[in-house]
Amino acid sequence: MNKFTKVKDVQIAYIGGGSRGWAWGLMSDLATEGALSGKVKLYDINYDAAYQNELIGNRLKDRVDVVGQWDYEAVRTLEEALTGSDFVIISILPGSFDEMHSDVHLPEKYGVYQSVGDTVGPGGLVRALRTIPIFVDIAEHIKEYSPNAWVINYTNPMTLCTRALYTTFPEIKAIGCCHEVFGTQKLLASMLEVLQGIENVDRREIDINVLGINHFTWIDKASYKGTDLFPLYSQFVDKYHESGFEGSEEGHWMNNHFKSAERVKFDLFKRFGLIAAAGDRHLAEFMPNTWYLKNPEKVREWKFGLTPVKWRKKNKQELIEKSNRLASGVEPFELNPTGEEGVDMIKALLGLGELITNVNIPNKGQMNGVPLETVVETNAVISYDNVRPVLAGKLPDSINNLVIRHVHNQEVTLQAALGQDKDLALQAFIQDPLLSTLTPEEAAELFEEMLGNTREYLNGWELQEV
Amino acid sequence: MNKFTKVKDVQIAYIGGGSRGWAWGLMSDLATEGALSGKVKLYDINYDAAYQNELIGNRLKDRVDVVGQWDYEAVRTLEEALTGSDFVIISILPGSFDEMHSDVHLPEKYGVYQSVGDTVGPGGLVRALRTIPIFVDIAEHIKEYSPNAWVINYTNPMTLCTRALYTTFPEIKAIGCCHEVFGTQKLLASMLEVLQGIENVDRREIDINVLGINHFTWIDKASYKGTDLFPLYSQFVDKYHESGFEGSEEGHWMNNHFKSAERVKFDLFKRFGLIAAAGDRHLAEFMPNTWYLKNPEKVREWKFGLTPVKWRKKNKQELIEKSNRLASGVEPFELNPTGEEGVDMIKALLGLGELITNVNIPNKGQMNGVPLETVVETNAVISYDNVRPVLAGKLPDSINNLVIRHVHNQEVTLQAALGQDKDLALQAFIQDPLLSTLTPEEAAELFEEMLGNTREYLNGWELQEV
Amino acid sequence: MNKFTKVKDVQIAYIGGGSRGWAWGLMSDLATEGALSGKVKLYDINYDAAYQNELIGNRLKDRVDVVGQWDYEAVRTLEEALTGSDFVIISILPGSFDEMHSDVHLPEKYGVYQSVGDTVGPGGLVRALRTIPIFVDIAEHIKEYSPNAWVINYTNPMTLCTRALYTTFPEIKAIGCCHEVFGTQKLLASMLEVLQGIENVDRREIDINVLGINHFTWIDKASYKGTDLFPLYSQFVDKYHESGFEGSEEGHWMNNHFKSAERVKFDLFKRFGLIAAAGDRHLAEFMPNTWYLKNPEKVREWKFGLTPVKWRKKNKQELIEKSNRLASGVEPFELNPTGEEGVDMIKALLGLGELITNVNIPNKGQMNGVPLETVVETNAVISYDNVRPVLAGKLPDSINNLVIRHVHNQEVTLQAALGQDKDLALQAFIQDPLLSTLTPEEAAELFEEMLGNTREYLNGWELQEV
Amino acid sequence: MNKFTKVKDVQIAYIGGGSRGWAWGLMSDLATEGALSGKVKLYDINYDAAYQNELIGNRLKDRVDVVGQWDYEAVRTLEEALTGSDFVIISILPGSFDEMHSDVHLPEKYGVYQSVGDTVGPGGLVRALRTIPIFVDIAEHIKEYSPNAWVINYTNPMTLCTRALYTTFPEIKAIGCCHEVFGTQKLLASMLEVLQGIENVDRREIDINVLGINHFTWIDKASYKGTDLFPLYSQFVDKYHESGFEGSEEGHWMNNHFKSAERVKFDLFKRFGLIAAAGDRHLAEFMPNTWYLKNPEKVREWKFGLTPVKWRKKNKQELIEKSNRLASGVEPFELNPTGEEGVDMIKALLGLGELITNVNIPNKGQMNGVPLETVVETNAVISYDNVRPVLAGKLPDSINNLVIRHVHNQEVTLQAALGQDKDLALQAFIQDPLLSTLTPEEAAELFEEMLGNTREYLNGWELQEV
Ligand SMILES: [Mg+2]
Ligand SMILES: [Mg+2]
Ligand SMILES: [Mg+2]
Ligand SMILES: [Mg+2]
Repeated sequence: MNKFTKVKDVQIAYIGGGSRGWAWGLMSDLATEGALSGKVKLYDINYDAAYQNELIGNRLKDRVDVVGQWDYEAVRTLEEALTGSDFVIISILPGSFDEMHSDVHLPEKYGVYQSVGDTVGPGGLVRALRTIPIFVDIAEHIKEYSPNAWVINYTNPMTLCTRALYTTFPEIKAIGCCHEVFGTQKLLASMLEVLQGIENVDRREIDINVLGINHFTWIDKASYKGTDLFPLYSQFVDKYHESGFEGSEEGHWMNNHFKSAERVKFDLFKRFGLIAAAGDRHLAEFMPNTWYLKNPEKVREWKFGLTPVKWRKKNKQELIEKSNRLASGVEPFELNPTGEEGVDMIKALLGLGELITNVNIPNKGQMNGVPLETVVETNAVISYDNVRPVLAGKLPDSINNLVIRHVHNQEVTLQAALGQDKDLALQAFIQDPLLSTLTPEEAAELFEEMLGNTREYLNGWELQEV
Repeated sequence: MNKFTKVKDVQIAYIGGGSRGWAWGLMSDLATEGALSGKVKLYDINYDAAYQNELIGNRLKDRVDVVGQWDYEAVRTLEEALTGSDFVIISILPGSFDEMHSDVHLPEKYGVYQSVGDTVGPGGLVRALRTIPIFVDIAEHIKEYSPNAWVINYTNPMTLCTRALYTTFPEIKAIGCCHEVFGTQKLLASMLEVLQGIENVDRREIDINVLGINHFTWIDKASYKGTDLFPLYSQFVDKYHESGFEGSEEGHWMNNHFKSAERVKFDLFKRFGLIAAAGDRHLAEFMPNTWYLKNPEKVREWKFGLTPVKWRKKNKQELIEKSNRLASGVEPFELNPTGEEGVDMIKALLGLGELITNVNIPNKGQMNGVPLETVVETNAVISYDNVRPVLAGKLPDSINNLVIRHVHNQEVTLQAALGQDKDLALQAFIQDPLLSTLTPEEAAELFEEMLGNTREYLNGWELQEV
Repeated sequence: MNKFTKVKDVQIAYIGGGSRGWAWGLMSDLATEGALSGKVKLYDINYDAAYQNELIGNRLKDRVDVVGQWDYEAVRTLEEALTGSDFVIISILPGSFDEMHSDVHLPEKYGVYQSVGDTVGPGGLVRALRTIPIFVDIAEHIKEYSPNAWVINYTNPMTLCTRALYTTFPEIKAIGCCHEVFGTQKLLASMLEVLQGIENVDRREIDINVLGINHFTWIDKASYKGTDLFPLYSQFVDKYHESGFEGSEEGHWMNNHFKSAERVKFDLFKRFGLIAAAGDRHLAEFMPNTWYLKNPEKVREWKFGLTPVKWRKKNKQELIEKSNRLASGVEPFELNPTGEEGVDMIKALLGLGELITNVNIPNKGQMNGVPLETVVETNAVISYDNVRPVLAGKLPDSINNLVIRHVHNQEVTLQAALGQDKDLALQAFIQDPLLSTLTPEEAAELFEEMLGNTREYLNGWELQEV
Repeated sequence: MNKFTKVKDVQIAYIGGGSRGWAWGLMSDLATEGALSGKVKLYDINYDAAYQNELIGNRLKDRVDVVGQWDYEAVRTLEEALTGSDFVIISILPGSFDEMHSDVHLPEKYGVYQSVGDTVGPGGLVRALRTIPIFVDIAEHIKEYSPNAWVINYTNPMTLCTRALYTTFPEIKAIGCCHEVFGTQKLLASMLEVLQGIENVDRREIDINVLGINHFTWIDKASYKGTDLFPLYSQFVDKYHESGFEGSEEGHWMNNHFKSAERVKFDLFKRFGLIAAAGDRHLAEFMPNTWYLKNPEKVREWKFGLTPVKWRKKNKQELIEKSNRLASGVEPFELNPTGEEGVDMIKALLGLGELITNVNIPNKGQMNGVPLETVVETNAVISYDNVRPVLAGKLPDSINNLVIRHVHNQEVTLQAALGQDKDLALQAFIQDPLLSTLTPEEAAELFEEMLGNTREYLNGWELQEV
């Protein structure tokens, strides 16, 4: 479609604009896209970090290899960031790595291991309790200062962040974006190479129908150029179920340290018949802990990694140093398209061509078998000022049963966070599959301690005295 | 309401008419009800047992204390039983106590204990696989020989038996009946006596709204003569949570051996805020096995009983002997109204007054938050040739999450039974909360062995060779 | 059911307490009901009328034939009336008979006749535009001063009055009550007498399932003591289709002047197969004007009456005079139970026995085929602090099509009234079946003039200058 | 997307393969599409016509300007046509022009004019009664002989033809296709030229959201390259409301004789606020006959045409002669792409690139406010072996009310046709808006006569003797 070709003066508010991963990614993607130009306002509770990104971003302007011209400006308030914005990008860390340390590692006392700890499981749930009030606040600001802007969220727990935005401001135009499905498309592309010798298949050429919730999404239909990929995948799984398949995620810009051998994905296929479309580290956390996360040895057998928070802390230090070098110009900023679709979405929403991709938005009927209004992940058609979900159908009942208990638990978590209701939050907590081997008393004890560790973010809650 | 007062020539088909518990109960109830008379055709795969019941039933006719006159006739085929019937009562034992022994006790090898084993859990699921084909067959016969009869089912697993009837013959007029909710009404009546000194409250005076699935039904509203019972129940639970409350089920005609101290019910109330409306033995089986069924010691602490199948076998022997005595007239048949509502329902369906009570029927919108068409237990208005559910609303999301995983699992079990699909059945099996501490491999192993033990009833299934 | 027997100190707020029909009816019903006593606060925009009713009501206290003791007190504000009330009764005339004159008679210029003009049709729609803001105001006051009270509305247009209450205050506990269905039950009782010689059947003995919207409700199942009434009704219709059947409504307390010969009802049965359950005067207004209201001659042929507003005006004068006589004691107040169920409902809501009857409340699934939340009329079970609709099912598509166009039109009317949006109101107006022979231009002209005549009640609307 | 580029050996069954309009159009479209080749089997109840098309089609093979190579073969049975087919195209005339003459012109006796008479209105309804059994038969054959083929229907009444296919064979993969929406996109393109001087806008560049039923579809969102078209359209309507706008449909391959000046469309926009997306001739038939079809003079004022069946008869003669010339080679076949999307859809379904366009399929939730399973027209994403509707949302209630009465009427018509139930069919007939000025007696009379004229196609119906 020969749409119009260029839009100037786009204004983007970046919440979490001091980030050293996602913000740099966005700079790269904007710099290499010639169709857009404008301004990015960087807002962060750490203003200095945002300011450093202002310096880094503005250094790009004079470079010959940069085709997209953008001004970067760190601002001190949400209001300033949002006012006049056409798009709002949210990519924040709710709390610090100290809270995350408690989320991820405290449950290990009870033999409960988590590979990521930011989505479901005890860590994901407590993170959600901490994050929802922040997103309520963001939504209220958007309602006041940029009600017509399109909002793109990258923060986890994706489902509940997006749900909190819509609950607070139902008319918000928000979409939650995540690259996990892309990873599975790439795996299918690798499969085509391995099994059929077809090289250089772009993941976008893999047509899929996706349905589920973020990080626990499923593919029930996949094809490549007129070929149904399910029979092939079945072969593929048979071949690599035991050994695992390595290599598909190489070079993924964010995931270098997060590889897996896809054995969890293969096992889920053998047991349930559909392709789970997220990294194994995420998938494992949605199942009872006797399945894939029983203990570190089992995890090693399943060939995926536990991501210790101490690694995140170390990595952060390295990024701070890199940030200093980039800001001062000692190290040149390397243009490195991320493969994320944020900029593609912005283009589509501006009218520069239609895009069909998976997004996280409230269920208006696109996914049967889960309650309306809960946030689900399916394909949508994105075009000028418009995001319309594609009807994705219904998961088979047995898989739906795996998914829907998380959907309900997330709803309860949302209600608990909005009502600052510890009893209710505990009702969700004790139903999490990762805790299914604990007694309710043990679960309650763990919950109390975890809440205590994040108490700073739980204004208004009645917590036990320390 | 002064309805008309008497209906003659009612014809009832009793499937499972050789039963020595339910059949005698029905005889009692019919004999003490003056408004009805007619004929009961007794059908049983054990014709001799049915015939003995024919003898027992017909002995009642001459007694002065009998106000309801009925002929009993044992018949040799379903067709004979059904033809011309106005009502069909189904109360069968699917398989023998040998299969039930495997259902209930085999999982103990893996540390999985079951108090009843006929509804959910590994035992309930395997029992369902065995029972569904029988109910498909019954439904096909009803469709052919008595499509307009009202069908009252007492057989467990109630939900899936009723679901199988409707799936096979969607126009069937069937209701599933169970007395567990009555027991909870009686508990509330006892509470009124204990806390307020109000004596002799009839359970029917306790107004309740019930919603859920059979044996896992919940009360979210209860009143007695203009008094809300929830604050009282809260007091009651506080008082008896630790010690348990005994005495409410005394003298229940069937449950003498099945008492509990209601501690599970009280614990669920403390944790979730609603009144669970079934016996503790049933309730415990719907929760993860770490909660109430962790091991026999724990069960004793929670003060409810495991019902060993060897007790059932012994009990059966005693009943056979009693049956001989009753048939020969050596022992007189004692008229003992059961408290079941089957006969009340029959009266209402014939136009002899309206009845509001809880029934198990497909969800046509009476219960929000669970899929349409699945069988749910709520109140209904029963009147002439008519059963109309009352809108029961929706469970709170956290309780709904406990319930709905069973709903989905039962749907998968149904599909597996209808399709003779072992893989699908296993998908349900490994999701049962009572098995949540097993690895999927252990669960699969147990499943295989349990299926083998019931193979006689699994025509058409591909099972491992013995 | 032997419920508790007496409730004292009930407080009722009567909005429209100066009424000379419904208020006197309530006094009668309360005076003859021994189970209740308390106080009625009479609020009316015409305080003097309310005060006169205070005098009339309080005169009852000393009478020996009065078994229910009530104090009556006229109050000057809604706040005073509502504060402390357990029940709120709403029975008002929105606007005066002058506005009603325009509603009913102005359309006659275009050949459009209306028999009542208070529900649908041009008159009903304009009346709704006038009434909705009043009900919004009432609902806001209830929300503030008596949020837990049960609200019983008698005002027309019933559907939109009730809808406006719920839209404004979604947690309101309101029910809309109307006797039209009772009239149809009485017709069926008369039928039993005429066709079968069964005398003195109470309308409550006629079991029915009702579904539809107020004044356009339908019966799809009717029985009397175990007999299906549909075959009988078919005979009855064949017999009286041409001549009409007279006599069934004799002595109805309100309807003496509003008789019909049921020919519209019979014709609808012949054409569509179900029993329409409202007076012919109402039913006729829901159909295209070519059907029953083509012109006064046709109306006479169909044997129902047009109620001219001048009759209402005259009748009002007579009632004022009667009111004076009653207040002064010159004329004794005659105790005359109305047959309305308001007091029965109050008893049931207080816990004095369960009641199943038809009510107007938002659709929560009790009626399929019409949108959720719109107000529908079906049976409900009324018990202590509880109104639960009974699942009524779905109308056949062809009848549903007659009903649903009014449902949608009423929704549009509601939106127009809430948004003071004349264009939107006109979109509903031109779709009313009574106007189906007009061109859109004619309809728009009529609408403009009708709106002008009720402009006093349309604050905030942009209307043409006079 | 660089999909694979060519598919050979595609097999198409063409039902109605003797057609002289649509079949030639398909030949043109296939001949000019280089990505596909294969065989078309032509089936027609008029075998000779199909055979002549075989000759015409096969003449194309040797031509240098033809890039798509296809064999054409006339076959004598549906079975032969369907067996082995990948695609089935249905484009038939149900009955002859004699029946159509009755459909269109008989109602004129009662002052009821129809511009097309093939969709709704008295003509559309009677045509549906005649057509549905034919489509039931086709669906049964497809179920047996080509259950996996994709079926593309062009026959009217589109909604009921498609609905009949799915009712008969629920797993059918059928889509109903119509170019009326394209015409409205072209109108918007013309508007851009007229108002903004933007030339040569392709209709595919006009992004729209469509929702409704065939020939009564609505656009609630339209943009061109990042510009919202609604404000422009409002200007456009203001400018041309009175005069009409001519020229947008010039050269449309089928519609040369069917032009309009869009005044109906403009009037609907002024009254209801959305863009009606079909030709005025169709739109007018969905509204009461007092609106646009009151009489031939009014029609002329609204500037659209009544299509007399005698024109169709004459046109048919001309086409027969042209067919002879084409078959014999006297006249060369002119390659003339139709602008229809059938071939584009076939390509997309084969995996040759994704297509988003409007289709008629059962409502699975893509359109709120109309019953599930009824056939609606919305956008869908078409890709390899997959048609997934895009969530289109809900029409405003006032427009929905215009649409939904046809939806319900069509459902009743379907049931009547399937059940050969004249009473039921009449219930739909008398509710058609085009008959809203008739009395029910007049409507019944007309109905009887119209049915009589199509009796040849109403096997099993009880009709009056002639
Ligand atoms: Mg993610
Ligand atoms: Mg039971
Ligand atoms: Mg009324
Ligand atoms: Mg068309």
